[in-house]
Parts: sequence; structure tokens; C-alpha cells
Amino acid sequence: MPWSRKLNFEIIIRIIGVLLIIEGVFMLSALPFSWYYATGDIFAWVFFDGQHDFWPLLLSALFTLGIGCVLYYLVGKEVKKSIGKREGYIIVTFSWVVISLFGALPFVLSGAIHSYTDAFFETISGFTTTGASILNDIEAVPKGLLFWRSTTHWIGGMGIIVLSLAILPFLGIGGMQLFIAEVPGPTPDKLHPRITATAKRLWGIYVILTVVETGLLMFGGMDLFDGLCHAFGTMATGGFSTKNTSITGFSPYIQYVITLFMILAGTNFTLHYLALHGRLKDIWKNEEYRYYLAAILVTTIIITITLVVDNTSPIETSFRDSLFTVVSILTTTGFVTSNYLTWPGALWFLIFMLMFVGGSAGSTGGGIKIVRQLLLFKNSFLELKRLMHPQAIIPVRMNNRPVSQDIIFNVLAFFLIYMIIFAIGTFIMSIMGLDFESAIGSTVAALGNIGPGIGSVGPIGNYADIPVAGKWFLSFLMLLGRLELFTVLILFSPAFWKR
Amino acid sequence: MPWSRKLNFEIIIRIIGVLLIIEGVFMLSALPFSWYYATGDIFAWVFFDGQHDFWPLLLSALFTLGIGCVLYYLVGKEVKKSIGKREGYIIVTFSWVVISLFGALPFVLSGAIHSYTDAFFETISGFTTTGASILNDIEAVPKGLLFWRSTTHWIGGMGIIVLSLAILPFLGIGGMQLFIAEVPGPTPDKLHPRITATAKRLWGIYVILTVVETGLLMFGGMDLFDGLCHAFGTMATGGFSTKNTSITGFSPYIQYVITLFMILAGTNFTLHYLALHGRLKDIWKNEEYRYYLAAILVTTIIITITLVVDNTSPIETSFRDSLFTVVSILTTTGFVTSNYLTWPGALWFLIFMLMFVGGSAGSTGGGIKIVRQLLLFKNSFLELKRLMHPQAIIPVRMNNRPVSQDIIFNVLAFFLIYMIIFAIGTFIMSIMGLDFESAIGSTVAALGNIGPGIGSVGPIGNYADIPVAGKWFLSFLMLLGRLELFTVLILFSPAFWKR
Repeated sequence: MPWSRKLNFEIIIRIIGVLLIIEGVFMLSALPFSWYYATGDIFAWVFFDGQHDFWPLLLSALFTLGIGCVLYYLVGKEVKKSIGKREGYIIVTFSWVVISLFGALPFVLSGAIHSYTDAFFETISGFTTTGASILNDIEAVPKGLLFWRSTTHWIGGMGIIVLSLAILPFLGIGGMQLFIAEVPGPTPDKLHPRITATAKRLWGIYVILTVVETGLLMFGGMDLFDGLCHAFGTMATGGFSTKNTSITGFSPYIQYVITLFMILAGTNFTLHYLALHGRLKDIWKNEEYRYYLAAILVTTIIITITLVVDNTSPIETSFRDSLFTVVSILTTTGFVTSNYLTWPGALWFLIFMLMFVGGSAGSTGGGIKIVRQLLLFKNSFLELKRLMHPQAIIPVRMNNRPVSQDIIFNVLAFFLIYMIIFAIGTFIMSIMGLDFESAIGSTVAALGNIGPGIGSVGPIGNYADIPVAGKWFLSFLMLLGRLELFTVLILFSPAFWKR
Repeated sequence: MPWSRKLNFEIIIRIIGVLLIIEGVFMLSALPFSWYYATGDIFAWVFFDGQHDFWPLLLSALFTLGIGCVLYYLVGKEVKKSIGKREGYIIVTFSWVVISLFGALPFVLSGAIHSYTDAFFETISGFTTTGASILNDIEAVPKGLLFWRSTTHWIGGMGIIVLSLAILPFLGIGGMQLFIAEVPGPTPDKLHPRITATAKRLWGIYVILTVVETGLLMFGGMDLFDGLCHAFGTMATGGFSTKNTSITGFSPYIQYVITLFMILAGTNFTLHYLALHGRLKDIWKNEEYRYYLAAILVTTIIITITLVVDNTSPIETSFRDSLFTVVSILTTTGFVTSNYLTWPGALWFLIFMLMFVGGSAGSTGGGIKIVRQLLLFKNSFLELKRLMHPQAIIPVRMNNRPVSQDIIFNVLAFFLIYMIIFAIGTFIMSIMGLDFESAIGSTVAALGNIGPGIGSVGPIGNYADIPVAGKWFLSFLMLLGRLELFTVLILFSPAFWKR
């Protein structure tokens, strides 16, 4: 697809209009829960009291639908269908921002969240599947709003699947071309048919897994509301819970179910597609998947042993807490069953390191991603070989195929920019008055779309006390991390807008 | 130079023999100071009491000289002169280890340092120009030993100049080929003549700068002993002082002199060579040098303003402390005039970030080095351009010349391995019981050859309380960092020893 000479603003506006219509419809889906769980007069015309959510949800939904329709029909039906790369970049970034701006409305209108800053933070944290919260008392929020809050995760997860498996490879972002290699689908000469075909297949899997998890959670005693909310939070690797103590209070059975589905959500979705078609051998050939499972296994064993030696809690509890925490952080979900900040120092640091790893490419997980790290490791250690054989050309291999230098460069640039943003982010957060650990913790947790970090924003803390400017900045970091950096950064390049 | 089929062990032993002889001679040079500052009977045949250093120094020197001669003559004069790359790697790593093993002897024999672990730590910290100390009361140590301690810095600095400007480029380490481009000298077809020629030129500059600094320090009131020791510590970007409070107690004049010479020591020594030949224009063309000065300027201004706003101390003091600390950390010297850990949070983090930057390539400074970071920054931001023009080949340019992909790869591998070692190192140090900040601080300070870090090993702390295993591990990190990682790591590759 050529780099278009003139920006096709019409198609950008039209697509954002469609997304707003979809968002409005999803918002309406929270109304049954608002109605079912209402105490007192459900239809009371009351706003900003923090108790009533029916009208706030309905009005926000209608407003969002209305604006969506205006944007969609405003540009008429004559719009040219061609979407170039530039339009792609703009659509991706702006759609996340715009749906977050609208998605924050119910929280503000209902008064469940007082400031628009906080509401926007909570909403973009949902759509980016981060799961960082400013709510001090989650259980006091009306159920309709909580359902909408969890729905933002689920929508964000859907967006990410299409983004990472269909759009980003097409845009050439972050070496993702590599991971798309095995996706079955039409040749990508046009963006539109490819997205449609891929989206249909993978959303099907996403929906099925969500339904199955909800069923398993309800089998373990959750009601439909809790089941759906936690399944949404799991499959999107989001991390919003409906409880103040996250998953801590639920039964071991439920904790294991969530662990299993976090692992599935952190897996490349094309592998699920292969599994459905019985191509299990191909799955095992996938190096990223093997390292993903190995990373979970090894860190869980290390932490379990240390906790057993160190603690008075029984082996099963230590194992369950270790496994849950490792999977939750590695997949960037951010659900919590135990406060890892109270673990011995070295374990604590191990968890901190996991925050940089992230899920698999093509999953709903955030962070740097395992396949990128694998490539970087391989390339670094091949350098020793290259030193010994300066004349030889020694390419990095992945899944038994040589990886082109362009992809390596792309991945290296990604890693470096990630680290630079991490450093600058920590600096900015410490300017805003956060202590060292909290500054590091909030930056890595936002950029990696994890949710809980270290310091005051750790597993039992939240983001309520971050200054206003800090909340906007962290929102920006969530967006940057979620959209694989380049998608957003390229919009800041003057050359992008020039020709 | 070909990758030799059979290792020429004779030449390795012979060269290490020569280095031991040189070390023994340097050790003797501490005797006049031992004699001059002796209290009581200088020649008293007393060992291990922490007070007498004449015999310990003399015996250690003779022992080192003796072993050196044995190694040198053992292999006879028939030895083949050819040094291949493999021999180069082995000589570089082993020479630093062996001279540290011998250099620790006077400390142990005199009893100034009780355990051999501590003595080795102090010595390798000297030879790697790190400046991390285990001494709780520096001023209680006899002057001859303190002189030897500072001399290890100076010898290490000499070694590093040859290493970084003549040997490493030849070995293809860490993209250093790039920085050697402008070094005047014979074509490098043989290692030996190149080293000799380069070494002579650059050692001349090193000696001159040391003499001038000593003179300026004595002009400001230091005696010859303090002047030499601090000049050694400055020019090697080492950081050992003869005072418990480092440079804090000295006059502003002396602090400014040391600042100036730290800046000079952190500069690529080929630029000094160009300066001596009046080629000032060529110096200004050097991008790394411009960024080096800009980094000092910008961070000093930020810190000065914040300290002035925040503090009660006068502007000049704030400026002097800021400049001194920035230069001391950036050049990886590690002299201290104020406790930066008590500065406001964000400044503190800025200093921490400087610990990753390091001096210029071809200087005595450690760390990642500015030119590498420049290359990485440039490459990362060019990636945005590459995304917009996927067909175009857009090379990174340095000093107006395109940089080959091989060098970029080399630098990227260096950076990544540095970060991996940093992460693993922090993990290992926290296993040994250090808290988060101290674990991070000790790792970055050792790996970057800085000296003071953060946490308990900060500017007013030291390394005395680190567990024994931790001291050996940090010693290894100092060596790794000082020898640009690959030189040491390649020795752990089985392929290195096979053919």
C-alpha cells in the first residue's frame, strides 16, 4: 500500500464514527446489570451522587451513539475506501483516545468518579487493558458502572488482537511482520479484507474463551456479573476486578481457573487457531510459546521454593500464589492474590523483572513481548560468535528460519525506545513527587499495561493519590505501550504530516 | 590477523610476566612515601598490625618482580612473536586478574585489610579504575599503602588507554572500530607496532596531564602525596581519595581543578592528541565530544537551579556541587563533594541515570560510553523514518560518515548484554540480602566502574558490609565492565577454546 500523498481524513472520521457507534452499543449492554442490581428507584433522575448509574449510562451511550452517527453520516457514503499507512497510524492512535474520552462519561455523570481526569485515567486504563485503578472502594461503585468498566477491558482486548495480528504487521511496526508469518489468511495486498478475515477468526476464539471461562467461574460459585467481569479482565489481560481485594478472596478453584485463562490470553492467538485445527505439532514448534511456558515454570518454581522455605503457609498456597502472581505479571494482567511486595527482596526483584517481559506477540498481553526479547538475546550472544568469525554472516534464527536484519533493527529500536521512555517516565514521575520505587513502579506498570507496580502503586495500593498531571502522563504511557510505541510516536514526527 | 589454530600460550605467559615486572616496579615507588610518613621505627619487622607498610610493600614488590621474571624467562627467548586475536582476549582479561591478585598482597601483609577478599576487592577496584572501597577509615591506613592504592588507579588508566584505543578496535569489540578511525598511526596489520606507537603517544599525554594536575593541586595547598594520589584518581577516572570524606573537605579551587581534569580524563584521548597538534576544528567536529559537554552542561544547570530553589546554600556552592557531582558520575570517577542521595527525588534519579551513560570512548571513563548511546538513539529514531520509507536504506551517520550495520549490531549487542548483566547482577545482589536500592546501586556502580552507587553503597557509604560472595561477584562485574564485556564473556564460550 503506497504512502498516500494526501491524507484521507474522510475515512479516518468515518471509522472513528463506527467505533463510537460500537462503543455506544456496548455501553447499553451494562444497563441490565444497572437495573438488576439497583437499590431503590432505578429510574430516579439523579446524577453525581455516586449511587445511581442507569441514566448516566443510558445518556452517555446515546450521546456516544449520536456523535458516532454524526461522524459516520457527516462524511457521506461517497468516501473513498482506500486506507493508506498514514491513515492507519492516525486511526489506531485516535480511536483509542476518542473511545476513552467518551467511555469516561458514565463515571463522571454518575458521580462514582468525581474528576474527569480520574474517569479518563480509569477508562483508558480499561481500554488499554492496563487495569490501573484510581478507585479506593471498588465495591461501593454501582454494578452497571463496574460492568462497563470491565467491558472497556474486553473491547480493548478485541482491538488489540486485530491490531497486533492484522494492522501492525501491515504498518511494519516493531518487527511484528515476523510473528504474522504463520497466520492463515489472504495475501495482504489490501488492508480491509485482511483485517476482516483475521478479525472474524480470532474474535471467534476470543469470544469462545470468554464464554468458557465465565462458565467455569460460575461453576465455582461466581454469579453471572462477577463471572463476566472477571472473564473480561482475564481474556483482555486487563486486571480490573469487582472486589477491593482483587482475586484474594476467591476460592483456590477460581484462582486456578483464572490462572489458566491468563496463560491462554497471554498466548499468541494464532496458536489457538492452530489448536482448533488440530495442528498441535506446529504449536510446539513455536519458540516464543516454549519460552513463555518455560519462563512461567522456572520463575514459579523459584518463588514457590523460596516462599516455602521462608514462610509458614502450606506448600499448595505458596505454589498457587507464586503461579498466580507470575502469570498475572508476565501476561500483564495485574490480578492480585498476594502482596508480592512483602516477599523476600530477591523475589520481589524477580517480579519486577517480569514486568519488563510481557506476554506473547499476538496475544492481548502488553509489555515488550517475549519474542522480541528472544530475538535480542539471540542476537547478543551471536555477537560473540561473530567476533570469532568476523568474515562469516551469522543471522539470528527464529522458529528455524533466518530473521532479516530489518526486523532485528526494528526490534532493537523498539527495545531501546521502550527503555528510554521508561527512564524519562520515571524521571517525570519523580519530579511529580513520587518516591523512587513508586516512580519506577508506576511507569513500568503503565507502559507495560500491567496495572499494579511497586511502591505506593503496588498490589495493595492504587493510583488515586497520583497528581493530576501524573495521571495524564501515565495515561499517555498506557497508550504508548499498548500501541507498540511507534504507532503513537510516528504522529509526533514532523515528516509524517508534511507530504 | 588470523584466528590462530593453536593457542600461543608462551606469549601469553611472557606478556603477563612483563606486566608483573612493571607492577613490581610501581610497587617499589610507594616505598619513599612509606618511609617519609613513617611513625616510629620504619624498618620494624612487623606484619599484620595495620600500622607498618614498608616491609609488606617491599616484600610484595620483590615477590611480584620475582614471579614476573620467572614467567618471562621461563618461556625462554625463542618465543614466537605472533599474537593472534585469541591470545589478545586471554591476555587482556588475565592480566587484569593477575595484577589484582598480586596487587592485593601489601594490604594483607600489612594488616591494613584483614581478609584477602577485601584486599582483592580494593585492588581490582583500583586497577579497573572503579574506586569502590571497603575501607571504613581511609586516613588510618599507612601512607605507603594509600599511595600504592592510588597507583593501581593510575596503572589501570594507562592500561585502559591502550586497551580502548589500540587493542579493542583490533579485536573488534563493542563497535570500537568506529572511534579509532581518526587515530593517527600506522596501518594496523600487526598488533605489536600499532600498540607501541599508540601507547607512546597517548601515555605521553596521560603523564603530562597527571603532572600538570598534580602541580595545580599542590599550588592549591596539597602536599606532593595528596597531589599525586588525587591526580592519579582523577586521570584514571578512579575515585580513591586519601580522605574519609573524599573531596568534600578541600577548597573550592581544588574542587574546580579536579572537576576540570575529570572532564579531560573523560574525553577521548585522541582529541587531546589533536589538540596538541592544533587541530581544534577536528575536535569540534567530534559528535561524541559535543554531546559529552552538552550532557554535563544541561544536567548541571538543571541540578543547580533545583538546588538553589530547594536549598539554603549559596548559588556558587550549589553550582560547584552540581558540576562536580555530574562530572564525577558521568566520567565514572566517583569522587564526592556532596551526598546526592539527600537531594530531591528527581535529581537523585537524574544522577542514577548518569551512571548508565559513562565517559567517552577512548577515555579512561567506564560505563556504556556516550558514543554508543548516541548511535543507539540515532538508530532508534531513524526507525520512525524507516517506517515511513520502507524501501529506502537509511544508515546511521556519525561525524558525518555512515556507520556500517556490523558496528550498529555490535553496539546494540553490547547495550543489551550490559542491561542483562545489570538485571542479573541486581538479582544476585538482592539474593545476598541487599535491599532494592543497594542491590541496584552496587551493581551499576561496579559494572560502570563508578565507585559510589545508591543505597548503602552511596556517596557516604562503602562496600565493607557486602557479604564475601558479593564482593567477589562485584569484582567480576568491575572486570566485565572495564573490559567492555565481550573481552571477558568470549572466554566463557566453548567455541573459543575448541579450535
